[in-house]
Amino acid sequence: MKRTEILIGGVGGQGVILAGILLGTAATVYDGKKAVQTQAYSSEQRGGMARAEVIISGEPIMDPQVRKPEILIALAQDAINRHLHKIKPSGLLVYDADLVEEFPSGPFQTLGMPATSLADREMGSVVMANLILLGGLIKKTGILSVGSMEKAIEASVPAKAKDLNLKAFRCGLELSIQCC
Amino acid sequence: MKRTEILIGGVGGQGVILAGILLGTAATVYDGKKAVQTQAYSSEQRGGMARAEVIISGEPIMDPQVRKPEILIALAQDAINRHLHKIKPSGLLVYDADLVEEFPSGPFQTLGMPATSLADREMGSVVMANLILLGGLIKKTGILSVGSMEKAIEASVPAKAKDLNLKAFRCGLELSIQCC
Repeated sequence: MKRTEILIGGVGGQGVILAGILLGTAATVYDGKKAVQTQAYSSEQRGGMARAEVIISGEPIMDPQVRKPEILIALAQDAINRHLHKIKPSGLLVYDADLVEEFPSGPFQTLGMPATSLADREMGSVVMANLILLGGLIKKTGILSVGSMEKAIEASVPAKAKDLNLKAFRCGLELSIQCC
Repeated sequence: MKRTEILIGGVGGQGVILAGILLGTAATVYDGKKAVQTQAYSSEQRGGMARAEVIISGEPIMDPQVRKPEILIALAQDAINRHLHKIKPSGLLVYDADLVEEFPSGPFQTLGMPATSLADREMGSVVMANLILLGGLIKKTGILSVGSMEKAIEASVPAKAKDLNLKAFRCGLELSIQCC
């Protein structure tokens, strides 16, 4: 597998960092790949900027910096404004259609899901939107196996939230034109 | 299979009508389903409005009119302006990211592909964008089988264009974050 850079952007409280940890854990612990995971957020815990970067590769990762992500996951309009210009041509923008209002077209693919409203309706919690987007990402790209992601979720979230996180991930995975 | 309404919009010369015929043929002749296919275009053959409507169902189709499409395939900004307000909540917008500049967010999923530039680069012909979008649609929704779509393509396009159309369809089908 070639080096793939993923950037996840949103605001504090949306689980941006958790999403990065899940991808990194699934890649390294359960999928036999190499990964580097970094994170950044502003001082406010809620409402401030949050960013997670993950590099996944079949080979050792020499350069740990995300420069031109193949994949941008945007959980807020702010993430579009900050990061969309970095996306690689022929890359993929995965976004929460409830929270991203607009973005300029470009030579990249897009996958939009009404993740926040789905999370609210189906899981009773808007903070599950991140897992829905991860499900959509894995379904579309196959960049990591479903099994390794599910194991990473089970290992990384608090026991009492496990079932809800798995449900949200599977919702994103199976989201077709009908609601999950 | 429940009734699914599909609306395809673009301008003349983009193969909008062919896309509708392919979906209808795949559904009825090769997938054992019922389908109704209608089409509309303005008097200009190139550059005028073109629209195809397809209803696919497991049951006989009593009402042949597309009112609230589950799926909108937009090959031009004009199609967004004309039809996006009709899309069903929890529906799916599939669009050519090279030709659609903007659309309002809503409670629907989106799948954007740089279909025209890919068709130009990979098939040497921008008119193959419609087949790339159909490939993306089938991959994402599974609404019809790949085999039935391929048979419909083989049966519906001129012999000399068969290979190129199949290549474009498979390109859409397999389009991941790397270019096909």
